[in-house]
Parts: sequence; structure tokens; C-alpha cells
Amino acid sequence: MDIEKVNSMDFGEFVDVFGNVIERCPLIAAAVWSKRPFSGLGDLEKHFFAFIDGLPLSGQEGVLRCHPELAGRQLPWGRLTAESQREQSAAGLQNLGAAERLRFTELTAQYRTRFGFPFVLALRLSDPAAAPRELARRLRCPPAQELRTALGEVKKICHLRLADLLGEQP
Amino acid sequence: MDIEKVNSMDFGEFVDVFGNVIERCPLIAAAVWSKRPFSGLGDLEKHFFAFIDGLPLSGQEGVLRCHPELAGRQLPWGRLTAESQREQSAAGLQNLGAAERLRFTELTAQYRTRFGFPFVLALRLSDPAAAPRELARRLRCPPAQELRTALGEVKKICHLRLADLLGEQP
Repeated sequence: MDIEKVNSMDFGEFVDVFGNVIERCPLIAAAVWSKRPFSGLGDLEKHFFAFIDGLPLSGQEGVLRCHPELAGRQLPWGRLTAESQREQSAAGLQNLGAAERLRFTELTAQYRTRFGFPFVLALRLSDPAAAPRELARRLRCPPAQELRTALGEVKKICHLRLADLLGEQP
Repeated sequence: MDIEKVNSMDFGEFVDVFGNVIERCPLIAAAVWSKRPFSGLGDLEKHFFAFIDGLPLSGQEGVLRCHPELAGRQLPWGRLTAESQREQSAAGLQNLGAAERLRFTELTAQYRTRFGFPFVLALRLSDPAAAPRELARRLRCPPAQELRTALGEVKKICHLRLADLLGEQP
């Protein structure tokens, strides 16, 4: 899909195609449509990022809370989005052994309690062993710093999903 | 469900229950969770409304664009949410005759083109004949005024859905 095609979309089509580049936040894609025309991938993603950066703290936390738990916890919405499923499989999280999975689940629960949002990681940029290690490290970060880190991961995921949709190299 | 129950929910439960009180905007419920505890229905809805009012113009338009078209157009997401389906049935829009439906569809298309978002109406507060009349009237309003009117309808829908969930009289 080239950028002319993107610029020709009505808002219904645009939200259909880009509604999940920020996980379960079609509102953001629907808002970004107001900023068309876009000159390319970089310009398009800039508007997604600016929208997130412009949200109040509660809204930024809200974006994070729309992400699924990684591996092991009953999912709030019952199932993963297609994008999340693909990303989690690729990272090998579904192949954790029972003990590793239990440990990972304990740490994600601690993370959730400490920060009030789930652990978000751009899995496609990690090797399979990295997620548990990153989780343990980030669990010790100060909350304001961790919010910035987590939103940075949301933006990496957004970038990868947009690149997929536009058929570009990330 | 009483307000103590609401205040005891973790964010996963809260978004499960309240994620669609603003149509297809779980992000807003996820943000409102930051504002707990809530003293009652009025306090809870105040935070939903404040979040919408605090969005930039593109975000307010985005909220409206997450709503389905009323009767007649192929839906962007393929199907209505359970809440919308109930509201549209109750308003009798599914019983429009062929000619009325065609006329209604033409007017909603004009509305979409003029304002850049779909026609939103709190159907449970209208009689079946009112929707086409309201649509024709609002189609002639200035854009800034119509945005305010449409967001007012979003808030009425939110109020009704919250009252249902809390088992209170709207």
C-alpha cells in the first residue's frame, strides 16, 4: 500500500486499516485521520506519536492499559488481537517452560501492581530470552521513567505495524 | 453493581465492564480508571466527560469516528457492538421502509462528507420518527456547533450505558 492510497481513504477505511497500530486504540487512528494528507511512513507515525505525547497522564496510562498481558495471564478481553498473537509467537513466549512461565507471571503481576499498567515490550525487537530479563530490570525503575520507557515500546510497536501495512522496511 | 464494586476493580476488569460506554474507545475507560475511587454514577461519568472535553479537536473528532453509521451503510468494522445493536433496534431504525432507508442513507453520506464524522444520536432518547428529522436538521448546522451537538449525544449515550451497568435510573 503506498501513501497515495492511504491519503485517499475515508475515515472508515482508515480506521479499519490502522485502528490497531496502537493496540486496541482505534480512537487514535480516527484522530490521526484529521491530519491527512501524509507524506510517508515517517510523517504518518509522527502524528500517532504526537497524539500519545499530547494526552494527559491518565490517557497515556490508558494507552498502556489497552495492551494485553504478555504470556500467562487470563486476558482481559478473552483473546489477543491478530497483531499481538503474531508478535508473541515470534518472540517464543508461548514456548516458556512451566517454571519460567510461572516466574514470568509472578513478575508481570508485580509490575501491574507497582505501575498500574501491564508490561509492554516490542517483542519483535527482542530475542526470546530478553523479555523475562527486561521485565525484571524495568520492575525496579522509578514510575515516571518506566512510563516513558513503556510508551517508547508502544511507539516501536506502532512503527513496526505501520511499516508492515505500508510494505516498507522498518 | 454498586460503586464499591466498581472501586474494587483492577484495570482489566474495569476496561472489560466500561470499555464501550464510549463506543469503541476502551482507551477512555482505561484512562478514567486512574481517577478512582468514584463516589457514584455522577462522579464516574464526570471523568468520562472531562476526558473527552480535554482532547484536542482531532481526538474529539476521533471519538465520533469510532461510532457506527446509523442504519443502511456497510459498517466499517463489519458488525455493531452489542450496545449499539440494542439501541438501534429499540429506535426502530431497522424497520425503515426501502425508500426511507435510501433517503436516510443519502443524508448520512452527506453528513459524513460535510463534517468528517458519522451522524451520532442517542437513539434511546428519540422516538422512531425523530432520527431522520434530526439528521436533516443537524446537516444544516455550522461545523463547530455540530461537533458540540454530536459530542453531547456521545455523553448522553455514555450516561445511559453507565446507568444500565450500575443498575440505576438514568
